[in-house]
Amino acid sequence: MSSMPGIGAKTATRMALNILRKPQADAREMAEALAELHKSIQLCSCCLTFSEDDPCAICADPERDESIVCVVEQPGDLIAIEKTDTYRGHYHILHGVLSPIDGIGPDEIKINELLARIDSNRIEEILIATSSTVPGEATASYLIDRLQTLSIKLTRLACGIPMGMDIKHADKYTLAKAIERRSHAS
Amino acid sequence: MSSMPGIGAKTATRMALNILRKPQADAREMAEALAELHKSIQLCSCCLTFSEDDPCAICADPERDESIVCVVEQPGDLIAIEKTDTYRGHYHILHGVLSPIDGIGPDEIKINELLARIDSNRIEEILIATSSTVPGEATASYLIDRLQTLSIKLTRLACGIPMGMDIKHADKYTLAKAIERRSHAS
Repeated sequence: MSSMPGIGAKTATRMALNILRKPQADAREMAEALAELHKSIQLCSCCLTFSEDDPCAICADPERDESIVCVVEQPGDLIAIEKTDTYRGHYHILHGVLSPIDGIGPDEIKINELLARIDSNRIEEILIATSSTVPGEATASYLIDRLQTLSIKLTRLACGIPMGMDIKHADKYTLAKAIERRSHAS
Repeated sequence: MSSMPGIGAKTATRMALNILRKPQADAREMAEALAELHKSIQLCSCCLTFSEDDPCAICADPERDESIVCVVEQPGDLIAIEKTDTYRGHYHILHGVLSPIDGIGPDEIKINELLARIDSNRIEEILIATSSTVPGEATASYLIDRLQTLSIKLTRLACGIPMGMDIKHADKYTLAKAIERRSHAS
């Protein structure tokens, strides 16, 4: 259990002892669920998120706007965006970011799958929602380079001061960006 | 000393004991500096920041752009923006935010001084840089209401994902705003 993110040797021991204190049936149930996990969950053949069904619930939903695709790094980002209840378009999961230092180039993440999707679909807007970290920005730049020759609108998430933050507490790079990208007030 | 922000009774005691351990001359020097503080520092008659000189170094600097005024809540916000090394315009300090529940209305903060400045100066842009907190937003809305009839460009700091943040870790309100205010990628 200590192989999982955020779980050290001590927590793993506590978890194991907790399982031992419960009835054996509980442990068996958990073991079965774990064994089933890879069998019941697969990648959606369209957006490549983890899903029990193919296509996933989002890709299969006729109410969602097919003309906009939000490109994210990981399935966890899709979950974060879905929680905002504001985005009604489709997604594409890259399953990683470009990181040449770790040997991760364009072929190691799902960029070709995105390009193939664009070719065969009527996509009007690609919203690049990679993180504003160094590899996230590098991936966004690469995508922009590859996609800007196509007649598709390319957009990025707004960068600036987060909601509810006192500007004194914003780091200076974010504040500089927020000044540079200031918008018309209305 | 415990009357100051962030200093509790314990820290105040530690500070007092620290002063007692040092030579008496040090304490006298500090006392003189404190007594001088209000005498040597005043409000700049133009932007209303704390300054030794009037006008302050920023208002007196001929290299700075007089046509843009950045409106902030407190002198600490001016310091934060100056640290970014990107803004070369002037400032206006409100010395507070609207907060009807605490009895702070437009006359309790320096809004009339801002309006007077606009009348007498050739200001082309007002960058409203109040915090994205509830009172900061209320103050911004009030300023927009008061200023939008004038032929001045009104702008706001960009709101969105801070630099270097993984989008999974952004709160859902910020993420919703970042999607809504997405910008053209280039």
